[in-house]
Amino acid sequence: MSETRNETDSMGALEVAAGSYWGAQTQRSIGNFPIGRDTFVWGRSMIRALGILKKAAAQANAELGELPLEKEQVDALVAAADEVIRGDLDAHFPLVVFQTGSGTQSNMNSNEVISNRAIELLGGVMGSKSPVHPNDHVNRGQSSNDTFPTAMHIAIVWDLHALLYDRVSRLRDVLAGKAVAFADIVKVGRTHLQDATPITLGQEISGWVAQLDFALEQVRHSELGLQELAIGGTAVGTGLNAHPRFGELCAEKIAEETGFTFRQADNLFAALSAHDALVAVSGSLRVLAMALMKIANDVRWLASGPRNGIGEITIPENEPGSSIMPGKVNPTQCEAMTMVATRVFGNDATVGFAGSQGNFQLNVYKPVMAHAVLESIRLIGDTCEAFTDHCAVGIEPNIERIQDNLDRNLMQVTALNPHIGYDKAAKIAKKAHADGSSLREAALDLGYLSEEQFTQWVVPIDMTHPTAI
Amino acid sequence: MSETRNETDSMGALEVAAGSYWGAQTQRSIGNFPIGRDTFVWGRSMIRALGILKKAAAQANAELGELPLEKEQVDALVAAADEVIRGDLDAHFPLVVFQTGSGTQSNMNSNEVISNRAIELLGGVMGSKSPVHPNDHVNRGQSSNDTFPTAMHIAIVWDLHALLYDRVSRLRDVLAGKAVAFADIVKVGRTHLQDATPITLGQEISGWVAQLDFALEQVRHSELGLQELAIGGTAVGTGLNAHPRFGELCAEKIAEETGFTFRQADNLFAALSAHDALVAVSGSLRVLAMALMKIANDVRWLASGPRNGIGEITIPENEPGSSIMPGKVNPTQCEAMTMVATRVFGNDATVGFAGSQGNFQLNVYKPVMAHAVLESIRLIGDTCEAFTDHCAVGIEPNIERIQDNLDRNLMQVTALNPHIGYDKAAKIAKKAHADGSSLREAALDLGYLSEEQFTQWVVPIDMTHPTAI
Amino acid sequence: MSETRNETDSMGALEVAAGSYWGAQTQRSIGNFPIGRDTFVWGRSMIRALGILKKAAAQANAELGELPLEKEQVDALVAAADEVIRGDLDAHFPLVVFQTGSGTQSNMNSNEVISNRAIELLGGVMGSKSPVHPNDHVNRGQSSNDTFPTAMHIAIVWDLHALLYDRVSRLRDVLAGKAVAFADIVKVGRTHLQDATPITLGQEISGWVAQLDFALEQVRHSELGLQELAIGGTAVGTGLNAHPRFGELCAEKIAEETGFTFRQADNLFAALSAHDALVAVSGSLRVLAMALMKIANDVRWLASGPRNGIGEITIPENEPGSSIMPGKVNPTQCEAMTMVATRVFGNDATVGFAGSQGNFQLNVYKPVMAHAVLESIRLIGDTCEAFTDHCAVGIEPNIERIQDNLDRNLMQVTALNPHIGYDKAAKIAKKAHADGSSLREAALDLGYLSEEQFTQWVVPIDMTHPTAI
Amino acid sequence: MSETRNETDSMGALEVAAGSYWGAQTQRSIGNFPIGRDTFVWGRSMIRALGILKKAAAQANAELGELPLEKEQVDALVAAADEVIRGDLDAHFPLVVFQTGSGTQSNMNSNEVISNRAIELLGGVMGSKSPVHPNDHVNRGQSSNDTFPTAMHIAIVWDLHALLYDRVSRLRDVLAGKAVAFADIVKVGRTHLQDATPITLGQEISGWVAQLDFALEQVRHSELGLQELAIGGTAVGTGLNAHPRFGELCAEKIAEETGFTFRQADNLFAALSAHDALVAVSGSLRVLAMALMKIANDVRWLASGPRNGIGEITIPENEPGSSIMPGKVNPTQCEAMTMVATRVFGNDATVGFAGSQGNFQLNVYKPVMAHAVLESIRLIGDTCEAFTDHCAVGIEPNIERIQDNLDRNLMQVTALNPHIGYDKAAKIAKKAHADGSSLREAALDLGYLSEEQFTQWVVPIDMTHPTAI
Repeated sequence: MSETRNETDSMGALEVAAGSYWGAQTQRSIGNFPIGRDTFVWGRSMIRALGILKKAAAQANAELGELPLEKEQVDALVAAADEVIRGDLDAHFPLVVFQTGSGTQSNMNSNEVISNRAIELLGGVMGSKSPVHPNDHVNRGQSSNDTFPTAMHIAIVWDLHALLYDRVSRLRDVLAGKAVAFADIVKVGRTHLQDATPITLGQEISGWVAQLDFALEQVRHSELGLQELAIGGTAVGTGLNAHPRFGELCAEKIAEETGFTFRQADNLFAALSAHDALVAVSGSLRVLAMALMKIANDVRWLASGPRNGIGEITIPENEPGSSIMPGKVNPTQCEAMTMVATRVFGNDATVGFAGSQGNFQLNVYKPVMAHAVLESIRLIGDTCEAFTDHCAVGIEPNIERIQDNLDRNLMQVTALNPHIGYDKAAKIAKKAHADGSSLREAALDLGYLSEEQFTQWVVPIDMTHPTAI
Repeated sequence: MSETRNETDSMGALEVAAGSYWGAQTQRSIGNFPIGRDTFVWGRSMIRALGILKKAAAQANAELGELPLEKEQVDALVAAADEVIRGDLDAHFPLVVFQTGSGTQSNMNSNEVISNRAIELLGGVMGSKSPVHPNDHVNRGQSSNDTFPTAMHIAIVWDLHALLYDRVSRLRDVLAGKAVAFADIVKVGRTHLQDATPITLGQEISGWVAQLDFALEQVRHSELGLQELAIGGTAVGTGLNAHPRFGELCAEKIAEETGFTFRQADNLFAALSAHDALVAVSGSLRVLAMALMKIANDVRWLASGPRNGIGEITIPENEPGSSIMPGKVNPTQCEAMTMVATRVFGNDATVGFAGSQGNFQLNVYKPVMAHAVLESIRLIGDTCEAFTDHCAVGIEPNIERIQDNLDRNLMQVTALNPHIGYDKAAKIAKKAHADGSSLREAALDLGYLSEEQFTQWVVPIDMTHPTAI
Repeated sequence: MSETRNETDSMGALEVAAGSYWGAQTQRSIGNFPIGRDTFVWGRSMIRALGILKKAAAQANAELGELPLEKEQVDALVAAADEVIRGDLDAHFPLVVFQTGSGTQSNMNSNEVISNRAIELLGGVMGSKSPVHPNDHVNRGQSSNDTFPTAMHIAIVWDLHALLYDRVSRLRDVLAGKAVAFADIVKVGRTHLQDATPITLGQEISGWVAQLDFALEQVRHSELGLQELAIGGTAVGTGLNAHPRFGELCAEKIAEETGFTFRQADNLFAALSAHDALVAVSGSLRVLAMALMKIANDVRWLASGPRNGIGEITIPENEPGSSIMPGKVNPTQCEAMTMVATRVFGNDATVGFAGSQGNFQLNVYKPVMAHAVLESIRLIGDTCEAFTDHCAVGIEPNIERIQDNLDRNLMQVTALNPHIGYDKAAKIAKKAHADGSSLREAALDLGYLSEEQFTQWVVPIDMTHPTAI
Repeated sequence: MSETRNETDSMGALEVAAGSYWGAQTQRSIGNFPIGRDTFVWGRSMIRALGILKKAAAQANAELGELPLEKEQVDALVAAADEVIRGDLDAHFPLVVFQTGSGTQSNMNSNEVISNRAIELLGGVMGSKSPVHPNDHVNRGQSSNDTFPTAMHIAIVWDLHALLYDRVSRLRDVLAGKAVAFADIVKVGRTHLQDATPITLGQEISGWVAQLDFALEQVRHSELGLQELAIGGTAVGTGLNAHPRFGELCAEKIAEETGFTFRQADNLFAALSAHDALVAVSGSLRVLAMALMKIANDVRWLASGPRNGIGEITIPENEPGSSIMPGKVNPTQCEAMTMVATRVFGNDATVGFAGSQGNFQLNVYKPVMAHAVLESIRLIGDTCEAFTDHCAVGIEPNIERIQDNLDRNLMQVTALNPHIGYDKAAKIAKKAHADGSSLREAALDLGYLSEEQFTQWVVPIDMTHPTAI
């Protein structure tokens, strides 16, 4: 009975479940690394990327006359890679993140699966490595040391485009729309958590939009580093056993397949031994996450209350807020978003640390770095989408509360500085604060100006933009 | 046709798949938080913990006369909780980490599942909330704000015992065995990566053992903070709507159920609004992870080569090391372990940051903090087990290399300090280094001592312990 | 003319300013490491610690018959060390943190200064190394590799006692006093920044006290690891060239000199190659810093306003708050404290990272680790003292605002759960929120209970503790 | 007697030392914030920047007709600001980093000093605030909330140019020179710390150069965000009390004064409430620091030994390496550099955390963020300079060792893959490893190829670049 089949590698033979496309090295890794729960799938980005790479490599090698296979065999190899790209073979990628630090076993997993599937398509015997050999053909002109970081870059660029840019931009656009819609709503500004001079709600929100614009620009710039691929460096960056044009041509094929800009890295030694481009992109994702934290915090504080907080905006009620306090509604989208921010912060700490730990020709923290960056991208994208749909679109001003707050605010006194000087203005504010009186009352009591002057000089809406005296 | 059923909460009704035990609030959360891939399951620790808590709460309330249910109904509630504990209902806990920051929806998920399952056991109508109501009975005397942190503590203590202590201890014991076995193997010591005075291989490994002992003691001490449970605090820490003895009694039941030490926290306000016990345990796990990084680095450096590194120990060959370099064997268990270390480091950054962000009566970063700590525990435990089995047990000295290295070492000159002084000893070492000669030759050339003295004073094994002159 | 004198070390001779007690190695370090601005002084803790150590070592060696000096010479050596302890020679410790990673140059700095000063006291020629030699006598039985970490532990324990414990405890006590003083002031609780069930101001503050108690216990426990000293390990942990009883005896002398508990570490290999005790103490300081951040945030939010925030407490006005907004007063002590918290967080990241980077017999990140921990201790101590004096002592309730807020709060509805159930209670709260009505009005409108029942059941003060039905 | 003089602010009067130019608010801050040892001086970058800003503001206001002063008085104000720029008044800036989170007191410090110094120049009475008032004139059209972040950006850009770019570039150039000089030295490559296929020493070093190029580009890009200045935003970003053209014109004056590109930020609300540009620049400095860690680690590992490490390069001997081991030389510049890297990593954690904590119209972590970024810049610049001068310039190959290592290396077997396939090549390597034989011997023994073929195919130099079959 054939529930398993024999698979071999350079260390010998072992049994693999007959229904699995993977081979000996993948099987060894399953046994050697029962660590954690996160498989290599990571939203399948890395699997797709390996499929893309293996397809491109086969095409490049074939074009360069480096692939000693019949056309039909090459076609089968490419067809198998296409199945990997599409996700048909995801179940055959069982390995976890915490494995060999070069990702060798996941690279071999892709070689083995594509080899066996191609053999199957060609009517051969799985495990025979013939006619499509996992190392000599699928991995032709490659090493884990250049393929895995190449796949990392492909996967991250893909996910930035698929999961992040548009969703952050949509949040940005929704907020920009709110900034315009609320451009004329004058309200209390706050600095040091203390009442400050007036601002419009639109202005307040425009600051959030500017933060997202800045952060997105940072992420987009950091993508440039990811466009450089390690492919062609093979084992140590020298390109040993690869055709001189292989790396360049393979990168071209990858660019064609994905539609993104990719090219071979200028220095392949750095591309294998360091992943500074990942440290950079992680750092820019952290800028974004920290901006989201500020925004989400502002939203929930502005919505705090309903009666004993600030309460100047309302946000959608999505679910009952409390298992014990009936009728409570909480800013839950803000909470998810700020939790994501702390997670991205931690992922970034992992990436920075791991990125520093390369030695000689290789950094062996590749899988954990890729995992952390991909997780950050997904979480940021997901939380932005949820926040947009379930919170941002529904932000509305609580006009009554905004006006009440503004009316009581003492910091309009600042408008008097150019007229009566900082020191007298301070005396007015202090008197009003001590008395519980209004600014107008305090100002007139102190006799620093006339009621007409007060009326003319202290106009909240006029305080929301610069003015010559 | 009944593929769905109606479920209601305080915001209204919605449809839930008929086969699901969860109710309206869980269903809302599925829709509102499509964020990331990590479900609440986390190796099911949190689900088990919620089951334990709900069972204990029902027992405590019943004992205090606070549960307005028939005995049969209480039994059904407890039976349903037991199913949650055992894992039979894991499929009914679909929620992700990035949800409400209080974990309210996961608490309600457990309330809903236990309610519906108990109703089913009693022959009632799922979704009717009768006779076992998710809030009024399952959540009796509780709030998410005290139940969720209680479950966090239960889950973490459980996993420390189930996944970490024994496995780290086993690694420690295996290494301690090696330290004894290799107690007499004298070798070159190294400081600043430079050759230094001799040490035994057993001494070198004993340092690793001491690090693990210290780190384990740190983790065990930090567990003390986790033994204090928030239960009984309800919404804001005051215990509103709970019987005065509920928290204390519930904690007792939890201790009985788990076999671990638990008691109600002295200050329930801190227990809801801060999770400093998690920050502390995360910090102690980081001590452990950083120790593991040092150990794994030493192992792979000592095993480096085989010919052009240090090569003083050999470690098991578990898999082919390279997809391009035939015959290469890599220290892959070290790589997995050090990757885990960087992940734990990042998790710790998340936990510390999140732990600082409580406001007033609640910290709303509970799920991400629990997730990060539980992930760190699992990863450390898993990597220690794999490292022990696939690496540590097979560490062997490469005697020939060790002796060759020792013979060439210049730092044995240090043994001469007490006899001829530091300055003359330095001259000997410098001469030998410059000439490529041996210490003995250089010493005699310089005429600082006789050959007999050299032979008597420079004895590597004597340099591995203190000696009076 | 003799403005400089000749000093030599094993690399040769160079000129040192005549008025400086330091020697050749210190002078080399000045030239080689012009990095940053932080000298080794660090509030002079490390200098004092080296003085203590060198004194103790001389005493121990003398007692063991290991110091080939006349009594008068030993006395001069000890007298010079006493001057270092007292701070008289601080100007002669010019080296910066970013030097050799073992702190070798600062250890030699102390050897050289004590040697030269002792020589001077004995009427000898500075730079002659006679009769008190920096290596052979002052550094007798020692290496930088065991002295520097010993001094690190001494300095940190000293500063914990001198700068931190008492000052954090005083803050804790002042807050505990406030908790008692305000035990009967019922106010709105807040969870998710949203209004929640009542709590007393005393209860709220008691949570802060509990956090400080917990954190202090963490720090005190982590001090235990620091009580173990590396002394006696010399170059690689073996104790080569030290008398077998030297380390133990030297640790005893250090304990006597300082009054703190110290003893020789059980495993000296770990004591040189890892500084996990520093990672642990840094982690516990982070627990404290994160607790301070929560407390300071609560204080400034509760004091926010004065009119358009929460405003339930007032804090002292220490300085004008704004260079443009007259009369503005800001929670500046909270701001300094939270900035300190972020700095401690960063220092902790440095310490954890550096702590993982030991290799073989030595961790060469000693100075930066010591610097970061000592900075954290000082900053925490300083900010606690300033916060206590200029903020905490002056925290007062704003009774009027507290009562107004409480009167408007809807979450008192929770008291009805045990009487009418969660679902009906939720309807009351929602109706009141929608109408802007009071809970009482909404409850009666809905007919769920009588006015008498409402009056009897909804009593804020009764909601601040558990109650049986 | 007049050893003090009276100074006043809006909270009243107090005594200031007669010789001090600062006023009441600075004096209050000295008393209120005795926290830590780091004064605002920070290598005086922030003081210079405030001087530049105040000068530019006076010029801009004067040009706009907004400064109600005589020309002579404006000139005195500008002259005082020039003294601040030059450093003449550094002693009058006594405040520390941990103060008000907006930097208000340091802004007022500069206002007070310039006011009093200008008054002095004009023959007036210090403390009289006449004719040059600290708020009404020196701070004209400004608030701490826009001036302090403006000064932060000026200071950081200045230091990037003054302390970092050139020094990192010089290190890069020195290494690039080494890469060229050693382009033909073939040596063992290493991956996973294990022997790998050959590489040239020049190629190895070229990877470091590429890392520095990438990191420098990241830092330069992040400088763009710093070129946008908050000036003109005044209290909350609206520009209240500033002339509409003030911010733009002031930024122009700053650009002229410094020679760097600066302009007013597009969104002033974000410029006050968030410092994402600092988070970004800190992140890019971390990329640089992590690259330096990799480089410094490689250097010290390659130089490890001298006899029992890798020993393929030699580095300068700058100081005696050990206080106990005579003749020991350590890679101390590498140690300082990697310690700096961990410090920069920690600073970056501080900056990221602090950067997320803005609320509404203000982030009140400004001083700690500026301090951390400025410290990172200085430390990186300093360590690069020291490393270049005392290490990099002296890196030389140890030709004999390199050749010995290469001769023994087994991974040249990889050159056989295209000829005999991966599996047979693996058998050769394994046999040689097991036997201790050479590759050639093992290959011939196994009969997989002829001696001629071996000689033709296995040529180390040919393995350092790609080749078609």
